[in-house]
Amino acid sequence: MLNEDSIAGPELPQLLMAAIGAQDGNHIASLLQPLTHSEALREILNLKEEDRVAAIALMPVELAAMLIEEAPSEIGAELVGSLAPKQGADVLEELNSEVQADVVGEMDTAQAEAFLSQMDAEEASDVRRLIEYDDDCAGGLMSADAFTFPQDATVGTVLRKLASDDTDFERYRGQHPYVLDAQGIPIGVLSLRGLLTAKRVQKLSDIMVAPITIQVETQLSALEDIFDAHSFLGMPVVEADGKLAGVLSRTSVAEAVAERAEHESLRRQGVFGDELRSMPLRIRSKRRLAWLSANIVLNIIAASVISAYEETLTAVIAIAIFLPMVSDMSGCSGNQAVGVTMRELSLGLVRPVDAMRVWLKEVSVGVINGAVLGVLIGLVAWAWKGNAWLGLVIGLALALNTVLAVSIGGVVPLILKRLGQDPAAASGPLLTTITDMAGFFLVLSLATLFMPFLL
Amino acid sequence: MLNEDSIAGPELPQLLMAAIGAQDGNHIASLLQPLTHSEALREILNLKEEDRVAAIALMPVELAAMLIEEAPSEIGAELVGSLAPKQGADVLEELNSEVQADVVGEMDTAQAEAFLSQMDAEEASDVRRLIEYDDDCAGGLMSADAFTFPQDATVGTVLRKLASDDTDFERYRGQHPYVLDAQGIPIGVLSLRGLLTAKRVQKLSDIMVAPITIQVETQLSALEDIFDAHSFLGMPVVEADGKLAGVLSRTSVAEAVAERAEHESLRRQGVFGDELRSMPLRIRSKRRLAWLSANIVLNIIAASVISAYEETLTAVIAIAIFLPMVSDMSGCSGNQAVGVTMRELSLGLVRPVDAMRVWLKEVSVGVINGAVLGVLIGLVAWAWKGNAWLGLVIGLALALNTVLAVSIGGVVPLILKRLGQDPAAASGPLLTTITDMAGFFLVLSLATLFMPFLL
Repeated sequence: MLNEDSIAGPELPQLLMAAIGAQDGNHIASLLQPLTHSEALREILNLKEEDRVAAIALMPVELAAMLIEEAPSEIGAELVGSLAPKQGADVLEELNSEVQADVVGEMDTAQAEAFLSQMDAEEASDVRRLIEYDDDCAGGLMSADAFTFPQDATVGTVLRKLASDDTDFERYRGQHPYVLDAQGIPIGVLSLRGLLTAKRVQKLSDIMVAPITIQVETQLSALEDIFDAHSFLGMPVVEADGKLAGVLSRTSVAEAVAERAEHESLRRQGVFGDELRSMPLRIRSKRRLAWLSANIVLNIIAASVISAYEETLTAVIAIAIFLPMVSDMSGCSGNQAVGVTMRELSLGLVRPVDAMRVWLKEVSVGVINGAVLGVLIGLVAWAWKGNAWLGLVIGLALALNTVLAVSIGGVVPLILKRLGQDPAAASGPLLTTITDMAGFFLVLSLATLFMPFLL
Repeated sequence: MLNEDSIAGPELPQLLMAAIGAQDGNHIASLLQPLTHSEALREILNLKEEDRVAAIALMPVELAAMLIEEAPSEIGAELVGSLAPKQGADVLEELNSEVQADVVGEMDTAQAEAFLSQMDAEEASDVRRLIEYDDDCAGGLMSADAFTFPQDATVGTVLRKLASDDTDFERYRGQHPYVLDAQGIPIGVLSLRGLLTAKRVQKLSDIMVAPITIQVETQLSALEDIFDAHSFLGMPVVEADGKLAGVLSRTSVAEAVAERAEHESLRRQGVFGDELRSMPLRIRSKRRLAWLSANIVLNIIAASVISAYEETLTAVIAIAIFLPMVSDMSGCSGNQAVGVTMRELSLGLVRPVDAMRVWLKEVSVGVINGAVLGVLIGLVAWAWKGNAWLGLVIGLALALNTVLAVSIGGVVPLILKRLGQDPAAASGPLLTTITDMAGFFLVLSLATLFMPFLL
């Protein structure tokens, strides 16, 4: 039975600090041992930077590697980067090859080379190869370790290898053995059934079947389709020349999809670069400001609409109460439409060319919701200020702006995607700027029109 | 080589409609065959409802099952639900046991029973058992199919089963064989190495090792920790009485995490119930309105602050231009902090008890970003309206409100979680209401204070 709710006691940070002070790496390990991996990482990240650096340097290499596998790669790179080259190389060698590449990929070239030059030459060359690939393509997600045999090997060889106590074998768990030709091109894949029903002296080329391969540059969305269409737990990845580059597991694809969803969700909130609170204040503040500053400009553009109607506002000051309400409510309606389109995009259910169909679907929702919200807010305005015409102006403005907001919200991610922009980061600000401007314009121009009845 | 960018031609919908009109299920299948699963689903969902129902009823059972495995479970339930009981049961039998339970779980009891009663009795009873579990616990994510043997079976039995041509074996791919006692309690797990190195006549009880089991009610966040701590591709799930209930795979956990991230991201945008545009307009509109109506109330509360300062507004109408800007900018800053906390929550790096530490970390960002944004907007207001005091009022209000917004944004998800509320759905509206109120109050009360200099 597993201990599922082990909670770090409040005294743990003090005990950790004492162990760090005493330079006792084994004691640090025994303090963290009862925790889950994410709890242990949390405790280490909550230490002050100098203590964290000391703790990582003192603890056993296996524990440091476990923490780094658990951490987002930017944090992993920081933790490895704080170690001396030899020790950092030892920690890197403990990591899975995908994690090695993710962590080293976050370092600058000089720092990366400092660690790579201290690693086992073969592993270092695997890492150098893997970091060349984009994070979200087969090359960036695959493991460089594959369970391979030459085509003239026999069934007996494979069975002996499967039965061997070789700890390296752990890495290949769930993989099918692949058969390579003399050039390193995968020409066959072996099934357990084939291995168990064949004679031990049979050549692998007699029992293998042709493998389905994936190109290194295949993108994540295509990989999802490929793993949907085939039930394999892992598939061989090949370079442009057909040579085996590594093996991609179904789990790695599922994990990359989860990570993509989380990053997208963060970008929609204006958070970039996988911010965690253990990062330096300067970086956190700067990254957030970059997005906010762009937003200020958009806000000024929207506000200039209000500025054009100062006379109307001065005459009917009650309008000022409802301006932020209309713009906020329309923004919310539009963001719902953005959310649905982003989801349909990630499920592959909608493409940029479907913009017209999406627009038609959203307009229907917009008309219904605009009517309901318009009546509601119109009644509120009427009751609050005792003027039915004011209710009409506010209600009509919100109704029209809701239709506009959901129409734009539904198609803006598709247009941005078509233009090669990031729909997650840009849809929200673009949408709210347009709906703010339109909302201010509708309220104020309708108020100008009905001015005699509002006074 | 796989065809990664097969794009459905523009004439496909017409061809599909013709095949549906001709009642030619095989032609429908051959039209969809070149597409990826998600492309095929998109084409089917884009049909009008009556055509979609006809297409599903006409197509081969395996194709219908494939589309349903690809679809979100609510859509899957709708597609199966449109079929006659016997045909629906045939389609359900083609699905993996987790998908069966997800789809049937979306139906009401009467409808579910109509299909279950037509299914193979054993499979139906598995489904009835699985739908009792929450979606996000081990019981809801596991597969009911396990690869099991009694303890007195021999190594030869297992090897023969592994080598057999039994198509059912496909379901167990990547699973280790489990050994059950007479009560159905898992008492051992077999490694391939153990099986290959033992004599064929040996009893399984001689070579098995004790399994690590998971309780059916274990929640997703705990499951992530368990699979982090162990490198197994699958683990046995047991009922409270210790009996084997099913097997949970690493991939199912990773996929559930991806789905959770996507749902959370949608809830943050005010979209509930996995909305897709192929759902009925009535449902889509109603669900979106429920959240928007709550938002109207919050907006009215915030706007009442403006109402209290109508005199100030009338005197200095320029203030009205900056009110929405200050509230929007603070909302954005606060949402960035919400985003980081939600991410740290999902990574297990922060807990509700860490609210104070989070608050301290956010205040530092708030002070820096508030100062920068306050100066920027202050200069804009000064330049625009030619009044330095106006710049001071607006800039100071935004600076103070930014500090407030990031402080609240950082801790609000933690407090909501502590109170057992959904932080994804409620953090945003709660945050913006508070920052709107505070923003309006700061701008208007500062303006009242500096009134002599603003006129």
